Amino acid sequence: MTSATGTPAYRRLSVEERRAQLLEAALSLFAHRAPEEVSLDDVAEAAGVSRPLVYRYFPGGKQQLYEAALRSAADVLEQCFAEPAEGPLTTRLARALDRYLAFVDQHDMGFAALLQGGSVVETSRTTAIVDGVRRAAAEHILSHLAVTAPGARLRMTVRMWITAVEAASLIWLDEGKQPPLDDLRDGLVDQFMAVLTATAGRDPQTADVVRHALALETPDGPVGRLARRVLPVVSDAAHLL
Amino acid sequence: MTSATGTPAYRRLSVEERRAQLLEAALSLFAHRAPEEVSLDDVAEAAGVSRPLVYRYFPGGKQQLYEAALRSAADVLEQCFAEPAEGPLTTRLARALDRYLAFVDQHDMGFAALLQGGSVVETSRTTAIVDGVRRAAAEHILSHLAVTAPGARLRMTVRMWITAVEAASLIWLDEGKQPPLDDLRDGLVDQFMAVLTATAGRDPQTADVVRHALALETPDGPVGRLARRVLPVVSDAAHLL
Repeated sequence: MTSATGTPAYRRLSVEERRAQLLEAALSLFAHRAPEEVSLDDVAEAAGVSRPLVYRYFPGGKQQLYEAALRSAADVLEQCFAEPAEGPLTTRLARALDRYLAFVDQHDMGFAALLQGGSVVETSRTTAIVDGVRRAAAEHILSHLAVTAPGARLRMTVRMWITAVEAASLIWLDEGKQPPLDDLRDGLVDQFMAVLTATAGRDPQTADVVRHALALETPDGPVGRLARRVLPVVSDAAHLL
Repeated sequence: MTSATGTPAYRRLSVEERRAQLLEAALSLFAHRAPEEVSLDDVAEAAGVSRPLVYRYFPGGKQQLYEAALRSAADVLEQCFAEPAEGPLTTRLARALDRYLAFVDQHDMGFAALLQGGSVVETSRTTAIVDGVRRAAAEHILSHLAVTAPGARLRMTVRMWITAVEAASLIWLDEGKQPPLDDLRDGLVDQFMAVLTATAGRDPQTADVVRHALALETPDGPVGRLARRVLPVVSDAAHLL
């Protein structure tokens, strides 16, 4: 709990700076240990401050600190899918996924613990925060699809894909961060276009979205490459048409 | 807690029959109320037996009863995806989904509470039971793809789809069980073929699976209909080829 020379232990920080510093220390601990194995002592030590100081900022103890750290992580995650409405849809999605997957990479076990549940610090409040991130991601994506009132099929497709991305992130962490992030991202973009196209077969609104999205794609973009790779696989199935 | 005339309250049941009766009563209560709002009194009343009798079977109280009910539900769910390896893949998948979605329909809030987490009765053990169901479903599906050693891409695709099916089930419950179950099932089958085909573009093993699956499909089957509905949507995108 004593701070080594050079750490910013007792440097004057504003209340907001100090709070941010403690949350950052907590998040980095949650990234490598289960939430229930992180004590306030650990957070104090990692931040180079005294335990009473941690308690002054988080009088509710570990549960309050965990929820505040989660809230701060959620704010970052919710911004991952904020992206200018310019260029092909797949380019925007790839940039959003790069930010999201970088977050997963950085927060590691903390991300997994949060989504997998069953933790002693999980409550209906923490579940609500995680659901909020999912909702925000869905809203961002739907806004890029440029429909004013997305119908049930389109919304369900987007929300299913977001859950599938979470599953892929957990599998990726579980498999020692394989495949490389670029491969994972490209595969997730492919899957998005695939599920959107399947839904387009049942839903006129989604069909409009797909037509509009395809018009902006280029032959050397993700959809062009996907189409050229998939065509040889399905070309033997002419008996279905 | 007294049983009405005609209920099988004090009829002689074997230990296994009594246990099954209590679990059934518990599951039907969990279907309509949050697990934390179901007491052992409620279970005793629903089963038409005394509270001491419930405690005799579940001395660990509510937590033990909840875990046993969950274990029993998990056994049913794990069998949903067991299906003879005959006929087109989409027919097998549709039958499995019919069983799975009937379970979701029947267990309703209990299913939602379980998957959404944040419940006071959720523990690492209950999380492990739910994960076991997901793993069993993935194994069943992979066995239908007739590959001896499924690679990472194929496994990830199947597991992502299973998570997406869970998400769709929760959304379906949340939206007052709309659309009709047949529509939901058909959409999920479409999505499975779509994501499998997208992965086939990146993975030779999955490409073999898709070729094999398509060879068994008929023009009036799910894939034939999907292909004919999707072609007009993507036909303007010849510039990508």
